[in-house]
Amino acid sequence: MAKAPDTPVSFDTKPYDWTHWKLELDGDVATLAMNIQEDGGMRPGYELKLNSYDMGVDIELYDAVCRVTFEHPEAKTVVVTSALDRVFCSGANIYMLASSSHPFKVNFCKYTNETRCSLEEPEMPTFIAALNGACAGGGYELAMACEQVYLIDDGSSAVSLPEVPLLGVLPGTGGLTRLIDKRKVRRDLADVFCTKAEGFRSRDAVKGRFVDGSFPRSKWADGITKVAREAADAYTGPTGTGIEWTPLVDTVTETGLIWDHVTLEMDRTGRTATLTVKAPTEVPPADADSLHAAGAAAWSLAAFRELERAIFHLRFNHLDLGLILIKTTGDGANVVAWDEKLAELAAGGDWLAIRTLAFQRRTLRRLDNMSRSMFALIEEGNAFSGVLFELALSADRSYMFLDDNGENAVTLGSANHGRHSMSNGTSRLANRFFGEPDTLAELLENTSPIDAEEAEELGLVTMSPDDIDWEDDVRIAIEERASMSPDALTGMEQNLRYCGGESMDNRIYGRLTAWQNWIFQRPNAVGDAGALTLYGQPERPVFDFRRT
Amino acid sequence: MAKAPDTPVSFDTKPYDWTHWKLELDGDVATLAMNIQEDGGMRPGYELKLNSYDMGVDIELYDAVCRVTFEHPEAKTVVVTSALDRVFCSGANIYMLASSSHPFKVNFCKYTNETRCSLEEPEMPTFIAALNGACAGGGYELAMACEQVYLIDDGSSAVSLPEVPLLGVLPGTGGLTRLIDKRKVRRDLADVFCTKAEGFRSRDAVKGRFVDGSFPRSKWADGITKVAREAADAYTGPTGTGIEWTPLVDTVTETGLIWDHVTLEMDRTGRTATLTVKAPTEVPPADADSLHAAGAAAWSLAAFRELERAIFHLRFNHLDLGLILIKTTGDGANVVAWDEKLAELAAGGDWLAIRTLAFQRRTLRRLDNMSRSMFALIEEGNAFSGVLFELALSADRSYMFLDDNGENAVTLGSANHGRHSMSNGTSRLANRFFGEPDTLAELLENTSPIDAEEAEELGLVTMSPDDIDWEDDVRIAIEERASMSPDALTGMEQNLRYCGGESMDNRIYGRLTAWQNWIFQRPNAVGDAGALTLYGQPERPVFDFRRT
Repeated sequence: MAKAPDTPVSFDTKPYDWTHWKLELDGDVATLAMNIQEDGGMRPGYELKLNSYDMGVDIELYDAVCRVTFEHPEAKTVVVTSALDRVFCSGANIYMLASSSHPFKVNFCKYTNETRCSLEEPEMPTFIAALNGACAGGGYELAMACEQVYLIDDGSSAVSLPEVPLLGVLPGTGGLTRLIDKRKVRRDLADVFCTKAEGFRSRDAVKGRFVDGSFPRSKWADGITKVAREAADAYTGPTGTGIEWTPLVDTVTETGLIWDHVTLEMDRTGRTATLTVKAPTEVPPADADSLHAAGAAAWSLAAFRELERAIFHLRFNHLDLGLILIKTTGDGANVVAWDEKLAELAAGGDWLAIRTLAFQRRTLRRLDNMSRSMFALIEEGNAFSGVLFELALSADRSYMFLDDNGENAVTLGSANHGRHSMSNGTSRLANRFFGEPDTLAELLENTSPIDAEEAEELGLVTMSPDDIDWEDDVRIAIEERASMSPDALTGMEQNLRYCGGESMDNRIYGRLTAWQNWIFQRPNAVGDAGALTLYGQPERPVFDFRRT
Repeated sequence: MAKAPDTPVSFDTKPYDWTHWKLELDGDVATLAMNIQEDGGMRPGYELKLNSYDMGVDIELYDAVCRVTFEHPEAKTVVVTSALDRVFCSGANIYMLASSSHPFKVNFCKYTNETRCSLEEPEMPTFIAALNGACAGGGYELAMACEQVYLIDDGSSAVSLPEVPLLGVLPGTGGLTRLIDKRKVRRDLADVFCTKAEGFRSRDAVKGRFVDGSFPRSKWADGITKVAREAADAYTGPTGTGIEWTPLVDTVTETGLIWDHVTLEMDRTGRTATLTVKAPTEVPPADADSLHAAGAAAWSLAAFRELERAIFHLRFNHLDLGLILIKTTGDGANVVAWDEKLAELAAGGDWLAIRTLAFQRRTLRRLDNMSRSMFALIEEGNAFSGVLFELALSADRSYMFLDDNGENAVTLGSANHGRHSMSNGTSRLANRFFGEPDTLAELLENTSPIDAEEAEELGLVTMSPDDIDWEDDVRIAIEERASMSPDALTGMEQNLRYCGGESMDNRIYGRLTAWQNWIFQRPNAVGDAGALTLYGQPERPVFDFRRT
């Protein structure tokens, strides 16, 4: 099948004017209903039947997640359900997948799974999946990302993961891992389930822990209301009065994109992008009221929303920019001051501080999962301090300019010791100093500016060339990096960025995603007679049965 | 480049008549020297220059590992070095790799890494890599599998992983993971190292923990002798007098292969293999002397050597057999009796019992890592008890025949509670009952025969059809499985077989291998203008620089 050319993805959404979702608030219970418009696909060539989704639906879903958590923090539980009768969601649209390029499929899965992971963050309301009809593939993966899953018992509705038997690919947004690791389904039952296209109806689904419970049609509405009420009553997380989730405006320039605190410069010839984040120009808000008054314009939220947006653009719309040069500018002391104030307000229970920190953490994890090389360039006037130093720790390497007077410096703070943990659950510093626990312990005490010489000695940066070497060293490193096989670099980076322990998230991105990427390339899935290619057509797929 | 057809791999080796290795014993210190014969390749088309290796070299290496540990348990340390001057090992032969099929490359990497993992087993002598010359790629990965690594300081010899910059693929036998997880190299230094084709000479290598030490040429021999002596003196593992590691003879039949305790029947049309393991026909040896007298013929070692051999044949020589039906026959009580006797002798410090158990564990882990579907068929007369029940636990599903009188039974023993842990460090039962700790605790006490009804109720087997359903249920399950996409099944199984924690081994097989499989398919590596294809030729590779 001819692949559609990748068309630029816009991440703009209109507040509450979503095409595919409906949000209703009822006191502390929100209901988010999927109502996918068949003719509302992001590009032509497929119809979004039976609540099947594409990237456009998922962009709206993530917007909905942000809105409900920032505009409606009064919601203690969010019921995710369908506005259609007898269908919850039939997963990612197969015709869209089959006609998409390999990089688009991989990025789509990553984005979708990141949204699922966001539902599982401890700072979130309790998400409850109310499966009021058939729930297949990515639909069931969305359900599993919720804390509780209920399936209607109507004699026909089932949960299923039909990807392997029907499409010759994997459930690609965490489904396999969530089955065994999160829902603790026995592996042989998971095997039966994942090879049975029609899935399990409520009896077997409850028995095998695929769902948490079921209600017959006559008791469905009351049953869901009751479990939602109980979850809301049991919720102990942050709540409060919302802020306005103002739209983010991308300003396109000749050479890139700019926002208030983030700029993205692109060098097509050199295949590099320069991502610059500016420190706050002011001291942090004095108290919770001031933070709430600033709302989405507060640096701590705005800068990370913009960073997230830049990450999305790089991933989807600029595949050829293989190396990201990360810079920061401004006063690092302000960054640390904002960190400490947010931590203080969060410790006091302020919902906005708590969720802002979670948003920062989520964005940094997206950076760790970039399939691009990243070099941090720490130059005079940098603001790689506190949470912005996490950008340097997320990079594959860091170059720090060794100036004559030791003024080029970075500063660590409490933000660098676990508050923004990687998806494997450890801080970036602990991950970096896996082999040097003493250095790690020493750094905990170190809150003074650290100049380039000391930073290299401590192992905080990779190299610190002086003014004689800087230009050549950095230029050559960039040119070399941009000349290597992009696939080998992606694989290498994904293996070197995480060490030691793994978490469920990490297993999804590291193990499941890698296998899916492999399968997405194989003729058995995407060849002319592959299962994904032929889905919905009369011909049966033809497999090369040799196992690898 | 045209791929060579996969030629059948023979796993036969002649004792001490290796082509590529030399073993010398000096009291409790063994020296294993690599002396690869350029014209000794396993198939025509490439020369094994500069101690570069192919599958044939690796088969001999694994044989050497088995011989030194079973025939020479007096060796407390094994020095792995090179018989060539100024070259330790230049890694896997690139021309061999470039001319190999995708499945062969993947299986070769898996086999090679399994040998490396075997060096790291706690029951082994201390392996010391003495890098007396250049050490690149798979050569350095072999070195990292040793407990200590020393590099000659001669101004030119270096350790390196040049796969990414030179070949556009990953170091594929655990190198990336061992760098950061085992040797605890800082991730940004690992990044610099893995993109620098020439690697690091001794000064930088020692500084970054890439090696444990170095000696100048003038002090090399003495230095290595000294560290080997110290390692032997510090060794506290099993030692003793060896047994003869008798050759294993494959008997080819019309439909498969047979050995004394294992048979492999192949059904090409159905794309299945039936692997049957026989229980011991006799009670276990009464004491250590009897076990040693039986030597390699003892059931506990012979049956697992044969099982290992069957696994190798399936992996390399029968790619089209996608589903393995695992059966056992004989008296399960004998299996449990052997288990308990071996455990008792091992607890008493008997080296042969200790290393036999390690060999069993290693073989079972190879089964977990099969890229084939596996169903255990537990029928009347089965011997799925004790260590042989691990075969059923390793399978993706198990079917147990529900007989009328409850005589079809399985029995658990101490062998099922962690002695043969999976590569993620947990027992197969704990992995299976990740969501049911109570069941797991209950099973610890359960040492009586468990009939089919109880086995299904406890969750020990997937299904227990009776005589009305058995034939159809099993036949349909087999036919369905054998009809699905082999790639999707491989990916699914690798994601469902391990849950919860991960270990370094697990991260290598799960994460690194999956990425490597992906990269091994990509045009940037194996296309006409790919880096692996063009290695050694004047043309430069041409990359599609779009990142995925």
